[in-house]
Amino acid sequence: MLSRWFATIVMTAALVPGVGRGEVAGKWVAELTGPTLLEPAYIRVTLARTGDAVSGAWGAQIVKGTVKGSSVSLVLTDTAGRDAGALTGKIEGDAGEGGGTMSGIGRGAGRGGAGGRAPVPQEVAWKLTRELTPPAKPRDINYDPTTFQAYYYAGNKPGIHIFPGDIVHTWAPDSAGTDKNLKRVALGGNPTIGPIYVEGALPGDTLVVHLIKIEPNRKTARQGSRIQQFGVTPAYNLAAKYDQGFNGEYQLDNAAGIAVLTAPTPALKNFKVTMKPMLGCIAVAPPGFEAMTGPHLGVFGGNLDYNGTVSGTTMFFPVFHPGALFAFGDGHAAMADGEITQTGLEVSMAVDFSVEVIKGYQTQGVREEDSDYIISFGVAGSLQEALKVSTAQLATWIKHDYGLSDSEVALLLGAVMKIEVTELVDPEFDVVTKVPKSSLAMLIKIPSSGN
Amino acid sequence: MLSRWFATIVMTAALVPGVGRGEVAGKWVAELTGPTLLEPAYIRVTLARTGDAVSGAWGAQIVKGTVKGSSVSLVLTDTAGRDAGALTGKIEGDAGEGGGTMSGIGRGAGRGGAGGRAPVPQEVAWKLTRELTPPAKPRDINYDPTTFQAYYYAGNKPGIHIFPGDIVHTWAPDSAGTDKNLKRVALGGNPTIGPIYVEGALPGDTLVVHLIKIEPNRKTARQGSRIQQFGVTPAYNLAAKYDQGFNGEYQLDNAAGIAVLTAPTPALKNFKVTMKPMLGCIAVAPPGFEAMTGPHLGVFGGNLDYNGTVSGTTMFFPVFHPGALFAFGDGHAAMADGEITQTGLEVSMAVDFSVEVIKGYQTQGVREEDSDYIISFGVAGSLQEALKVSTAQLATWIKHDYGLSDSEVALLLGAVMKIEVTELVDPEFDVVTKVPKSSLAMLIKIPSSGN
Repeated sequence: MLSRWFATIVMTAALVPGVGRGEVAGKWVAELTGPTLLEPAYIRVTLARTGDAVSGAWGAQIVKGTVKGSSVSLVLTDTAGRDAGALTGKIEGDAGEGGGTMSGIGRGAGRGGAGGRAPVPQEVAWKLTRELTPPAKPRDINYDPTTFQAYYYAGNKPGIHIFPGDIVHTWAPDSAGTDKNLKRVALGGNPTIGPIYVEGALPGDTLVVHLIKIEPNRKTARQGSRIQQFGVTPAYNLAAKYDQGFNGEYQLDNAAGIAVLTAPTPALKNFKVTMKPMLGCIAVAPPGFEAMTGPHLGVFGGNLDYNGTVSGTTMFFPVFHPGALFAFGDGHAAMADGEITQTGLEVSMAVDFSVEVIKGYQTQGVREEDSDYIISFGVAGSLQEALKVSTAQLATWIKHDYGLSDSEVALLLGAVMKIEVTELVDPEFDVVTKVPKSSLAMLIKIPSSGN
Repeated sequence: MLSRWFATIVMTAALVPGVGRGEVAGKWVAELTGPTLLEPAYIRVTLARTGDAVSGAWGAQIVKGTVKGSSVSLVLTDTAGRDAGALTGKIEGDAGEGGGTMSGIGRGAGRGGAGGRAPVPQEVAWKLTRELTPPAKPRDINYDPTTFQAYYYAGNKPGIHIFPGDIVHTWAPDSAGTDKNLKRVALGGNPTIGPIYVEGALPGDTLVVHLIKIEPNRKTARQGSRIQQFGVTPAYNLAAKYDQGFNGEYQLDNAAGIAVLTAPTPALKNFKVTMKPMLGCIAVAPPGFEAMTGPHLGVFGGNLDYNGTVSGTTMFFPVFHPGALFAFGDGHAAMADGEITQTGLEVSMAVDFSVEVIKGYQTQGVREEDSDYIISFGVAGSLQEALKVSTAQLATWIKHDYGLSDSEVALLLGAVMKIEVTELVDPEFDVVTKVPKSSLAMLIKIPSSGN
């Protein structure tokens, strides 16, 4: 994977205008490997050069050193002036590599922003590549996906590379892997498109996704007609006489936003469902070497099945790998809370989106915003734990953004917080908690408060 | 308790107009006791007299017999013509009593409408009292409560007797037991008023409560400012620095429906809460001899803490005891979903309500209706179990009322059901599921369908 990521960045460096060849100065991305690192670490590096002297920032460390030809010799100190390591190597053109020691990297630094500073500098190998800048003008990209993920996994080969700001027009198959022509294009079980490599996204960042449009791109959807085991009591389902041949196919009137059954039973002849098209699966690659099938979900997103993930919403994902490796699928024309029949009205979707990257700030888990609410996802093995995780992120988020104290945020949440059970039928449970933006707009930021 | 109930019914019989003294014919309530009954059973009895011959219905059984003076001799058969027992005794004036045998009573008959028919008639003692009829014109009753329940318990002495149709104007103290003048009138811990004895309500019925008005009757409310242990992760609360002196008192502008903090911190100076006054506790007496303190909740209601229990809603309770023993309290001017600070904006309330009784049909648990939804409560020891119980009642309710099949109701719920986590801080968890009335209005009742 290292070589793939490295090659990817080098390959696209040609897009970056105005970077002088053979120049140490500039903005770089350092990939760090070493015996104390379970996976590569990535930091942003800024170097300036005055004669033979080099100075700047090496991640969170202060760097000073010298350059002779392409050879560099660098000394690192932390912000308190303490020894943070020493590095040597070569920088030529748009790449560099070398070795040495440094502190302040490793597990923790890439997983939640906490950053466990190693007590002593550790042995590392480093590679530098130029930090890319997006094209001057965001592009309109039509992406017709031909690769689909069966697993959320950082090792999947990206289907496309995009820059923050690009507007991508694409589509995703339904949960069974069928496209707008009902042709099977991928394995069933929530295949997701791509993944999509977002230039400039690094572990420790947040990927921001603007879901501009989510619309069914065909006229039929299918829904299940049994209540799943976590949706009702065992006694109810034992007594239930489900019709194995029940036809749960709908005809979609996408213009009117109404779904009706294709072959309704007499009782359901007039039954109409108001469509609220959503993406059930939306994800970045999960941490480390984790690989999970399409039905799974977690801190990386995945099969969140939130019926609020609709056109016009913005989502936030913690980035665990270079490029974030964004992906989505599992469209529903509509879905009850909890997805209690283990399906929504399953349909392929036309999707337009764009992304941003918040550098150096990583959300605890997935977040969302719509016009009225800020929304925190909690995923865990029970509804109670999922709710706790969701509330913890929501409270921490508000404390971070508004500088409230613990008591202030508790009072706020206890007065206005809403809870939604998004999904209870998948390998983990998913609960969102949310707070109205109208309540947040009343808060006064006090510089000295918060904790 | 038997004598109390008996005395209560006899005492109020004087209200019933037009009942002839010394007449066997009429509508009666039979209280049945016996060695195979854990608690008294209650059935409705209708007797007609032609000369010395008596006929009619004895609960679900057909009764025939003779009367000589005040002595009656009755034979029971079930609807299939099989022996269902024999009774003798006396009926004089508005009361009767005697003994004998009968089948079809006991555990089950009063707990969910299922009715476990005993294989052979069991020994019983019986007492008859006249079934009361409400006054011709519903009354307006001002009830200023002076008795408050610390326990939900069938043994509590009623504070007032009302008839279906009466409009009751009353009030309830806050969860701390303080009234509109901030005077402590009851023990803290969710005291509830009354209880209120509803004439004509019997075990196996459903009590319908129309909540006409729920409005704070004072200008201040109090809210907690710590997140309760089930509302957030242990790690969050371990790190939180709660201010023990934080002032969670609000000033209520009842006309504008806005609450503001009495002494806000700088950050919360502009913070306003839109009021949505609700009753946290609302209950009938729980089954059998169960006695539970105010914070408890269950199939009888209790501390349901649903922020949808507001003015204009209608609630439905399974009746477990004669008179239902209705009670409420624990007003909140507003409350987040889940009551995550273990309080809403706690305040005493002015309440107007009226009741109806649905005879011979008992809901599985508590239900509610507002203008837009039918709503099913589920109470259990985990959110997952509470949700399952809630969905089971909702599905069963819709199948009963609309004649849908299991597959049809599953499809309906999977397309449009909403879930709300009402409360997670009390001795049990409470979840509601609900379906829009607009969706139900599309259903066509097919006489032959359903199961």
